[in-house]
Amino acid sequence: MLQQIRDYLPVSHWLKSYQRDTFVSDLVAGIVVGIMLIPQGMAYAFLAGLPPEFGLYAAILPLFLYALLGSSRSLAVGPVAIASLMVGSTIADATASGLGDPVTIAINLSLLTGLILLLLRALRLGAIVNFMSHSVISGFTSAAALLIAVSQIRHLTGLEIPRDSFITDQLMQPLLQFNSINPSTLSLACAALFTLWFVKEKLCCLLERSAVPAWLSQPICRAGPMFAMLLGIILVAALELDLQAGVAIVGLIPEGLPQLQMISIDLQLWQQLLTPAALIALIGFLESVSVGTTLASKRRERIDPNKELVALGAANLGAAISGTYPVAGGFGRSMVNHAAGAQTTIASIIAALLVAITVAFFTPLFYYLPNAVLGAVIVMAVLPLIDIKAFTDSWRFNKADALTLLGTFLFVLVLGVELGILCGIAISFLLLLYRSSQPHIAVVGRVGDSQHFRNIERYDVTTDKHILAIRIDESLYFANTRFVEDFIRAQCATHREVEHVVMICNAVNFIDASALESLENLSVHLASEGITLHLSEVKGPVMDQLQNTHFIELIQPGKVFFTTDEAIRELTVDNTNPLASYDAGI
Amino acid sequence: MLQQIRDYLPVSHWLKSYQRDTFVSDLVAGIVVGIMLIPQGMAYAFLAGLPPEFGLYAAILPLFLYALLGSSRSLAVGPVAIASLMVGSTIADATASGLGDPVTIAINLSLLTGLILLLLRALRLGAIVNFMSHSVISGFTSAAALLIAVSQIRHLTGLEIPRDSFITDQLMQPLLQFNSINPSTLSLACAALFTLWFVKEKLCCLLERSAVPAWLSQPICRAGPMFAMLLGIILVAALELDLQAGVAIVGLIPEGLPQLQMISIDLQLWQQLLTPAALIALIGFLESVSVGTTLASKRRERIDPNKELVALGAANLGAAISGTYPVAGGFGRSMVNHAAGAQTTIASIIAALLVAITVAFFTPLFYYLPNAVLGAVIVMAVLPLIDIKAFTDSWRFNKADALTLLGTFLFVLVLGVELGILCGIAISFLLLLYRSSQPHIAVVGRVGDSQHFRNIERYDVTTDKHILAIRIDESLYFANTRFVEDFIRAQCATHREVEHVVMICNAVNFIDASALESLENLSVHLASEGITLHLSEVKGPVMDQLQNTHFIELIQPGKVFFTTDEAIRELTVDNTNPLASYDAGI
Repeated sequence: MLQQIRDYLPVSHWLKSYQRDTFVSDLVAGIVVGIMLIPQGMAYAFLAGLPPEFGLYAAILPLFLYALLGSSRSLAVGPVAIASLMVGSTIADATASGLGDPVTIAINLSLLTGLILLLLRALRLGAIVNFMSHSVISGFTSAAALLIAVSQIRHLTGLEIPRDSFITDQLMQPLLQFNSINPSTLSLACAALFTLWFVKEKLCCLLERSAVPAWLSQPICRAGPMFAMLLGIILVAALELDLQAGVAIVGLIPEGLPQLQMISIDLQLWQQLLTPAALIALIGFLESVSVGTTLASKRRERIDPNKELVALGAANLGAAISGTYPVAGGFGRSMVNHAAGAQTTIASIIAALLVAITVAFFTPLFYYLPNAVLGAVIVMAVLPLIDIKAFTDSWRFNKADALTLLGTFLFVLVLGVELGILCGIAISFLLLLYRSSQPHIAVVGRVGDSQHFRNIERYDVTTDKHILAIRIDESLYFANTRFVEDFIRAQCATHREVEHVVMICNAVNFIDASALESLENLSVHLASEGITLHLSEVKGPVMDQLQNTHFIELIQPGKVFFTTDEAIRELTVDNTNPLASYDAGI
Repeated sequence: MLQQIRDYLPVSHWLKSYQRDTFVSDLVAGIVVGIMLIPQGMAYAFLAGLPPEFGLYAAILPLFLYALLGSSRSLAVGPVAIASLMVGSTIADATASGLGDPVTIAINLSLLTGLILLLLRALRLGAIVNFMSHSVISGFTSAAALLIAVSQIRHLTGLEIPRDSFITDQLMQPLLQFNSINPSTLSLACAALFTLWFVKEKLCCLLERSAVPAWLSQPICRAGPMFAMLLGIILVAALELDLQAGVAIVGLIPEGLPQLQMISIDLQLWQQLLTPAALIALIGFLESVSVGTTLASKRRERIDPNKELVALGAANLGAAISGTYPVAGGFGRSMVNHAAGAQTTIASIIAALLVAITVAFFTPLFYYLPNAVLGAVIVMAVLPLIDIKAFTDSWRFNKADALTLLGTFLFVLVLGVELGILCGIAISFLLLLYRSSQPHIAVVGRVGDSQHFRNIERYDVTTDKHILAIRIDESLYFANTRFVEDFIRAQCATHREVEHVVMICNAVNFIDASALESLENLSVHLASEGITLHLSEVKGPVMDQLQNTHFIELIQPGKVFFTTDEAIRELTVDNTNPLASYDAGI
């Protein structure tokens, strides 16, 4: 029993050997992440269409729960950009259909996301994320990042651009409404963007090169958003920009820790939120697992996807109880956490404590924080996610991947995140089917005197004009069976001397009912032209399948040969020397 | 130029050698099919929710056009049961949303169906039908046939059952409204069903065994529907059942050939009709091609799917011009046409002439025709389409096919024909992906002294404890790459002495970007544990792909071996005799 509990709590594995050195590492990493988390949390809540404090609430209890249950030691869980965007569009849709206020919807989304993750664990369906290919994820991430960046134009300029207007429209508005741009807001935004860029790209290098110790330089390097916030707050407060120049500010943020919530269940609302929650759960899980795997492999560790499902599920239930919106493992902060030296999940707990202290005592400090600065924080956080190299790389390796990536990217931009990613998944499936519907088929011959057979177009091989040996590089099923049948018929029609067709099945991993019928038709057709159909190198599982049917009797005198070599030797003897079989008989 | 026209008109190939004998064969077949076509046409129009004459109109001009352009000599085009059901449900939906009257909708459906077929030809997309597996078609056909049969209960009983009520509801109604059943209607229906059964199952055998010549017995055998109609008409007229007993009758059918139509284009209506028209086109094309192929292979001929697209497209445009609903090549009548000895498409022209004469002069004869008889004709025509054996056969061969069949069947019953078949296609795709996401992987060893390697669990093979040779029976792509990676890692973890992993890639037909990344991770991970990853039997197209990347340098000192035999020999030498390489050096 005790052992079972220990198995469920990865934390128990390292806690007993936890030492002072490790704690110092964790402390530094925790402070660094906490410094990033406060501005990012507020900014992401903003992106989700919620008041800023909800981003902070999402950075307390969920982090504790993940620290207890998660199998990754350096994954930084909390509010993340893409999930925030998805929550934002779900809230916009659901409030438009009058299903509730944004906060209720956010809480229910967290609850559903958590339950879906736990359900996936219970049903052992975590492998479902494997059905999203890298290309789909990559195209999705780039498009979502672009959407996020563009959605901040209204905060950076102070223009009134409707939230859900089309991306090109959002890009055009600053040009069309050029005269309505709030110059103070735009200036603040530019100052914030410059601060963020300077700290990240310049200050960091300077500090690294100078003699500043790492425990000091690292927090400073990651404090760009904090500096930008401070700068914005000071400028607005000092110049009274909110009153004098109409700069939008965050305003009053309630003080104190989030109140734990009782959640009332509204089935009609749940029905509406099910698809978005499922997508938030899947994408959050996928992002967490992929970041976690990357970090774990740097330490020669492995993360356990099943434990991650449980830990993320619990973290999202924690978000629901804290009255806030769904969380996931974020790419940016996890990388920072790792680079800052996080050894265990204690680092996350320290970051969460930092946020908790801020929420409890310091929210009035953010009164004058301009929205433009939060917008700038978001833009700088998501720009690195736009990955053009992924497209060029995949174009070189595999056109289908590149098309999937581009298709997903465009669909997400045009149709929005949910429908877009579903379309991307559909594209990846359809291209896969399309590819296997036109399989590579090679006519093969013997390589020298060996027992090996290779494509006659690529190798110097010997063939026998009476025997057509064909290797089919795909499983046989409904989408390609006619293609294969047509190919073999066409080959037999052009090579009139062929008497035996040997289908080499070493790449045929299964045969479905459509293909079986097609093969039967083919063998009957060939027989009517005096050609015998043989199989060779049929795999165990396929042979098991065929033995349940009459196919093997049907193709007689055709045979199933163990190896292609055996097939060609036996069939060649039959042809070149009609007496050979007599000899063998004597 | 002339040659091109000849290529487009298959009829030109046989017309010059057409002889008297052939004509007699065609004449008999044409009369047989015509005798079937008149009652079936009226009945199917009825099923489509249109007045009976529209079924006859669909059996004139479209047949001429197909006879001119079609590549199958014995395919009988015209109104068919399943397309009629689909048209019926589309008309019910579209009239419910107030988009037009049934006839306008039917005409627009024909026009769109024709255009879609021609578009598929122009885009060379005829192969799209290959994506519907036999199992989907089989499940769809059985369910559609069941839906059609059940939908006739209201005509057979005279009960008022709403057209679009659920199948279980339609089945329950006769029990619930037992007292409202019209006894005269039910009696007429039973008499018609008995006549149909008797002529088809008994009279036919009697005639065949007796000395009646084939040219006489064949038309009689197929005249069951005609006899049933005559019987119904005589009974109703003589006993005045329409007035005395409330038997529903066909009533006045306008006399004369269909008027050629100008079709006004309504884009809003087209938008609504696009999906149903596409499905009617695809299913009609698929049914025609599969029947056509079956018949052609009996005569050692082949049909050309491209010509079929053109011919069916033209036939449907002909249907639109005749002011009626979509046509296709029907299973039942084509079989009869072939069996009755049709040699060329002249048989179809004769059948069409027969229908035309009927429409022009004899429609008043059908005034007293009871709806119950048409219902009986439909039921007897579709019952043979319900194919339970297809399910049991596919269950034995391949569970995924059986599940697809059953799923499609149930979805069509529950969600209707359109959504049902789309769900069926989705099931077949998902099962395919699921299967390939958990590929068969075999650890292999050498068979005796041969150069062949087989599964250690199925064959008596020899292995080397330092070398793990693994054959992956699937292409590597996003859905299965983690599965493969986990398998190899687990194998290496349990076999601690392994120093070389050889991935045998003879069944790997392509590698996508996700899998490439996974393989790179795997090779780095294995290298960190002192294990070298090698590949063997990589196919040409896959090798071309890999050569565009850094993978081959990355796995060094791992190699890509031409054959597994070569790999094992080289790696074994390295291990068993550490001096071997020195010896070779000397």
